[in-house]
Parts: sequence; structure tokens; C-alpha cells
Amino acid sequence: MKKILIHLCLAAAFPAFAQHNDSLNLRQLSDEIMLHGTCYDNLRVLTKEIGHRLSGSPEAARAVSWGEAALKQAGADKVWLQPVLVPLWVRGSESLMVQLKGKEFEPLHMLSLGNTEGTAGKVLERTLICVPDLAAFDKLSDAEVKDKIVFFDYKFRQELISTFEGYGDAVKYRWVAVNKAAQRGAAAVIIRSVSTAPDDVPHTGASRYEDDAPHIPAIAIGNTGADKLAAACKKRVIKARLTSDCGMKGVMPSYNVIGEIRGADEPESVIVVGGHLDSWDVGEGAHDDGAGCVQAIEVIRTFKALHIKPKHTVRAVLFMNEENGVKGGNAYADSAKAKGERHILAMESDAGGFTPRGIGLEMPELLKQKVKSWSPLFLPYGVYDFDQEEGGVDIGPLKKQLGVPLAGLLPDSQRYFDLHHSRNDVFETVSHRELKLGAWTMAAMVYLADRYF
Amino acid sequence: MKKILIHLCLAAAFPAFAQHNDSLNLRQLSDEIMLHGTCYDNLRVLTKEIGHRLSGSPEAARAVSWGEAALKQAGADKVWLQPVLVPLWVRGSESLMVQLKGKEFEPLHMLSLGNTEGTAGKVLERTLICVPDLAAFDKLSDAEVKDKIVFFDYKFRQELISTFEGYGDAVKYRWVAVNKAAQRGAAAVIIRSVSTAPDDVPHTGASRYEDDAPHIPAIAIGNTGADKLAAACKKRVIKARLTSDCGMKGVMPSYNVIGEIRGADEPESVIVVGGHLDSWDVGEGAHDDGAGCVQAIEVIRTFKALHIKPKHTVRAVLFMNEENGVKGGNAYADSAKAKGERHILAMESDAGGFTPRGIGLEMPELLKQKVKSWSPLFLPYGVYDFDQEEGGVDIGPLKKQLGVPLAGLLPDSQRYFDLHHSRNDVFETVSHRELKLGAWTMAAMVYLADRYF
Repeated sequence: MKKILIHLCLAAAFPAFAQHNDSLNLRQLSDEIMLHGTCYDNLRVLTKEIGHRLSGSPEAARAVSWGEAALKQAGADKVWLQPVLVPLWVRGSESLMVQLKGKEFEPLHMLSLGNTEGTAGKVLERTLICVPDLAAFDKLSDAEVKDKIVFFDYKFRQELISTFEGYGDAVKYRWVAVNKAAQRGAAAVIIRSVSTAPDDVPHTGASRYEDDAPHIPAIAIGNTGADKLAAACKKRVIKARLTSDCGMKGVMPSYNVIGEIRGADEPESVIVVGGHLDSWDVGEGAHDDGAGCVQAIEVIRTFKALHIKPKHTVRAVLFMNEENGVKGGNAYADSAKAKGERHILAMESDAGGFTPRGIGLEMPELLKQKVKSWSPLFLPYGVYDFDQEEGGVDIGPLKKQLGVPLAGLLPDSQRYFDLHHSRNDVFETVSHRELKLGAWTMAAMVYLADRYF
Repeated sequence: MKKILIHLCLAAAFPAFAQHNDSLNLRQLSDEIMLHGTCYDNLRVLTKEIGHRLSGSPEAARAVSWGEAALKQAGADKVWLQPVLVPLWVRGSESLMVQLKGKEFEPLHMLSLGNTEGTAGKVLERTLICVPDLAAFDKLSDAEVKDKIVFFDYKFRQELISTFEGYGDAVKYRWVAVNKAAQRGAAAVIIRSVSTAPDDVPHTGASRYEDDAPHIPAIAIGNTGADKLAAACKKRVIKARLTSDCGMKGVMPSYNVIGEIRGADEPESVIVVGGHLDSWDVGEGAHDDGAGCVQAIEVIRTFKALHIKPKHTVRAVLFMNEENGVKGGNAYADSAKAKGERHILAMESDAGGFTPRGIGLEMPELLKQKVKSWSPLFLPYGVYDFDQEEGGVDIGPLKKQLGVPLAGLLPDSQRYFDLHHSRNDVFETVSHRELKLGAWTMAAMVYLADRYF
């Protein structure tokens, strides 16, 4: 009964003439973005002229300057940098050699996992053991694990239709498996990349040592390399040789990049729209998350180009350090809390620049129902899914600290984990139309939240 | 009231336990395809080992043999070839040189439009006139058109969210514009490619001369080439030089490739699932329409692998000559009519191997409502749109001649016209997961139609 009442209230609050008017305004946003949008060109510059940009790197510093200039170019009323201290992790050189056939050592494509420590450039040669998953690992005796290189051959569950579900399932091998093996005296860990791709490209990504876990090396190998390694393991006892330089090198000063349109009626109330500026140190961080950054900038540009004067302040935030620390997301929320800023919505795009299908909602039920009542306005653009509980990593602290309602862009997920955190996440894999449609979805949500939240 | 009654009847005919059972069976289909599907590997062979395959070409003949073997490999009860006479159009060599700056002639990337006649290898040099669209062309005097090369600089309407809508709007320049110019004495026609891509890649595609239209050459240039040409036209009177060998070279024997699972209860009633085997003579015909062929084969393979015994005969048809004649589609319908075969559904995949979003329905309202009542079964797979009136070119004759209900797979359309009919339609642009999800959508529709149609 309560639900029915809510629906009735919403229907009354959102009459047909409002829908019609909004529909026309959303079409204006769409025409502007599809015909004159600059997000695709912006992404080309970020990815091709700067490239990958791990927190604390010189490229990340260049990306900060780029973001500042791009937000000014988009017409933001005010652009500024918010200082953030970020961890500096450096890969250095690295290699893995394995006895795939007989006694000879052959190289396998590999990447150390982010935040891990390497072999300090020394050769670590040990017997390798292969386990299909954590359950099998738990059954091994301590003697079987001690001083071995443990290969967790856990496969991404391709039968799950949402690849984010598959990611959630498999990503524990970057975290839990590494620590479990370390705690039981393993010498190093190899995981099958958290990847859907039928190729031999390794995917990196953050790991983290538990307080009681030795800082052993941890690396990922590509899917077909993992197939070969698993096959070799089944035939005989084999050894692996790992060499790597990677490790944490302290902290560095960096920045969130922020640009805003000041609200016409309630400038003290803020709507945040964002993505993260840092990326892993391979590929170009095109989908993860150059796309989110240029889409957030596009929202500002489009509002300005159409002379839309939002009631509330609309703020694009390019967060630093999502990948290996979330220092930017935390710094932004800390600052908002300290200043007593009111945020009515924070929306993030950090699931790739693919064709949009929905908007995830992490907010009270009443607000969710309000957003769902707008779904007829989104459907003509192929945006139909408002049933996922999804915000974003960088905006998470805003909810945690200040209870801010969160929204997350939900692009189609089929291609993301083919290239996520790998050398294949490059500009050429981004579709100009899909990227722009995602930007429209952000702009439309901001437009409606500004009017009705 | 009638609609309400229909809904009530359907709800009664499709109770919850059936939905639950079907849901489990569709999940089985999905698991089989996502984990063990061979469509992606099949597509690799078709595109990489055979490549493009215009009707009547040696490659098309090899594709027929490939299709026959693939359907046998998939486990079809019976595989056969259905003879079709197809037109043989041959491109030969071709070039376009234009005075982009001053008197010097510079080359532009170009492709003759399919089915057109060239310059018989001779150099055709004429003054070029540029018009933005047909309306502007209609305002020109006959003297302004006569013996000129007419450049129709009509742009794909990027603001339309469905690119098929944009295609429907722009594709008339391949047909109507060519004939209008020919009828008014133009020497040749150049069109801006029917392409959404921000690049200089020309897209071909069929044209056709009206009975009273002279067979003048007609070519397409890429989008950035068109931008250059339009800019040059605005500055001064310029000339273009066209040389091309293309033309119709008679007819050739070819085949539709057909494989079926014989129905357990009503073998004389047929469900067709298909794509087209021919492609244009550039690129690899990966999305258009290798994808549709391997998806149709995947339906057969999956039913066989899961020991599903359909009540009706399920028939995969790889149609020949969709691109420049539809001889295969017509031959299939002619044969079905001659034999008095009953078809309860024909479904085609010919809109690319992209992530599926819906199923187009060209069938009586009562059947549409039945399909729509299944939508809860499709939604977990991201398939939500059953509101488009879409079948397919090859199955069109089945409806026209025999009134067969039609369905068309509706993949996401954003990337299709970036590569359609161009050298960029290659295997690398196909996502293994998207292709398989499309195959699942076909299999699910066939499974449900077999049970409930």
C-alpha cells in the first residue's frame, strides 16, 4: 500500500506537461552532444598525447594540467585543483620464465599486481604448484605451500551475463588469494588475470597486503598463458623463475581537478558528476577511466553551450587515485564535510565508455522511485535499467561520510573486462557514439536531479 | 477491452510454473553458448580464412562449402544446398582524382557503389558540382547538371539515436540521388558515404538504375574526404577525374546453405533462423553478416549439444546474395511455396554481432503480444525491446509470399554504420561475448516459439 501511495504521489508530482517539456529539453541535450560533443576529441588528447597515468607519475601530473585546461575550455565558471597525497607505486622491469615443456624455461606474458612488492630485481626460482581455486588451496598442507610459487588458476565465469558479477567473483584472487598464500609461507603468487578476453594479455589491478601477511610478489598472466601453465602443471613438477623491481616508493603530491557551474538558485547545494583521472600504468586508460572524465567535462560543456542555468551548483570532479588508494575520493568527501557543503547527488562514470543501458542508484527508496518515474524519458535513448544498486568508488566516501545519494552510469558490460587494466584499454576501442550517449545519460540525470531532487 | 482480454488469455496460457521452467531452460542455453559456443571460432575461420565474399565470387563459393561443413559439424540432422542464380558484379580497379587545391589533381579514397557501371577503364574528367541534398539538387537547372559530376554531400544524421533510422534517411542517396542525376544528364555521381565514422573510409553498398536512367558511374567517398571536397567546392570551380572498371558480368550459379533439426512432433512445420552468407567485396563481412550466419549455426549446435528435441523442424538458412539482389531470400520463399511448407516463424540476424537489445517483430498483433509476454525471460540478458517492427531482408519474401511471422535480432546499433560495407568490417571488431549473447537471443526465441507458437 505504501508503494502504491508513493507512486500516486510521484505521478501527481510529475505530470504529463512536465514530462513533455523535459523530453524536449533532453532532446536538446542529446542533439548538442551527438552533433557538437567534444568528449571524443578530448579523450583522444588524454589517451594519445598523455597516455596511461598512474597516480604520482609524470603522466598523472600532465593529466591534471590537461583536465584543468579542458574544464576551462568547457566553460566552467570556476576551475580549481584540490590537493591529494597519493601513493607512488612503480613497476620497473619484470619477467616470468616457466618450464612449460621439460627443463627449458620459457617466458610468459605477465604483469605484477599493483601495490605489491617484487623480488627486488633478484631471481626467485621455486617449484610451482597449481590450484584451481581457494577451496582447493585451503586443502593443501602447509608443507605443500611453503616456499612454493602458487598459481591460482581461477577462471572468470563467462556464463554470468553481467561481467561485473563475474569480476566481483574473480577479483578476490587479486586480494584474498595473495594474502592467504603469503600467510602460509608461499614464496610468490601467480593468478590467471581477471579477464574475459580469449587472448594472452595480462591484466593488472590493485592488491593489498593484510597486516600479518609477508609482502610476497604477486603477478597476473594472460588467459592463454594460464591455459599453457595449467597444462604443464598437470604433466610434471615444474619450476618458475620470477624477477621484478616493483614496489611502493612513498607518497607524492597530486590533485583532484574540479570545475563547476555555479547554481542560479541554491549555489550552496551541489550535484557532482565525475570520473577518475588516474589509470593503471599499461594501455591508455581509455575506458578506465578517461571515458568518465571526458563525459563529466561534457556535462559542463553542454550545459554552458545550451545556456542552461542549473538551480544547484553542478560540479565536475576528476578524481585522482581511484586505482590504488582512493585518496582523491576520500579527500573530496573530507573537504565537503569540513566545509559543510550540501550535496544533493553524486554521479560517477567508471564502468567504461560503452553504450549506456541504465543508471545504478544508491539512495533512499523514495528518491529511487522518483528517478524510476523518469524512465520514459530515458527509454528512447536505450537507457532502461534503474534496478541496480551501484554508485562508484570515488563517490562512495560522500555517501559514507555525508549520506549523499549516489548514481552510477551503467554501460553495457560485455567488452569491459576484455581490456580493463591491460595494454588493450586504448582509444581505438572506444566508440564515439557510445561515449557520447553515455555523456548524454550523465547530463540528463544531472538535468532532472537539478529540477526535481 | 480487447487488449485486456488478450492479456488475460495470455496470462492464463503462460502460468508462473511455465515461466520458471522456461527460465531454467533458457539459462541452460545461455550457459552452453557462453561457455562452449563455437560461433566466435566459426566467425574467425569465415572471415580470416575466406574473407569477403561477394555473390558469384570464388570466395562466396568457398563460403558455401564452409557453411555446409559448419552445419554438419554443428550436428544438423540434414544439410543441403539450395541452388540460386546470382548476379556477378565485379569492381576491378578504380580511382578518383580531384582538384582539392588549385589545378593539381589529388586522390581521394573511394569505392564504386555496388551494381553500378564504371567508366570502362577510361578517364572521365568533368566539372564537379556540390549539393548538400536532394532538395538543393532539384532546384538546379538542367544546364547546371548536364555532363557534370554531381557530388551529393548529404551527412548521416548523427543526432538520431537509432543509427538504423539515420541509415534509412541517408541511404536514398545511394538509390534516388544516383537515378535523379542520371535522368538529368549528369556524367557521374559522388556521394558522401552512408557512414557514421569520423574517418576517411568509403562505404559501398547497392545501387540500382531505374529503367529510364542512363547507367552513369556512382561512387562513395569517406567522411573526411567529403569534408575536403565540400570545402574545395566552396572556394572555386573544380574538376574531378574518375576511372573505374566495375560492372555487371552476368549471372553465376550459387547456393543457399541449409541445415535442420527435424521436428519431433510436427516435422512439416518449420522455424527458420538465418543470416546471409554473402558480403560486400571489401573488409571481411564480419558483422555484415558473418555474425548472423555463425549465430544461426550456433542455434543448431546448442540444441543438439543439449539434446533439445524441438517439436517443429528448426532450420538454419545461410542466405546467398542479400547484398545485391536478394536472390537467395526469394529462392527460399519460392521453394517453400512450391513445396507447400508451413513456416511458423522466420528469424534473421543481419544488424551486426553487437550486444543484443531486443527482437523486432513483424507478425499479427496476437502473436506480438505472446512474444511480449515472454519479456521477463529475456530481461536478465539485457534484451528488453520488443516494440520495433523489424524482420530481415532475406526472410521478407517468406512474409510476402506465405504470410510467415518474422522476427529480427536487434543488436545495439551505435557502432554498426562506422564499419558497415567498408574495409573496417573485420573480425577484430566483433566481441566474443556480444556475438554469443546474440546467438543466445536467437536460440531463446526459437525455443519459446517452438513451445508456444
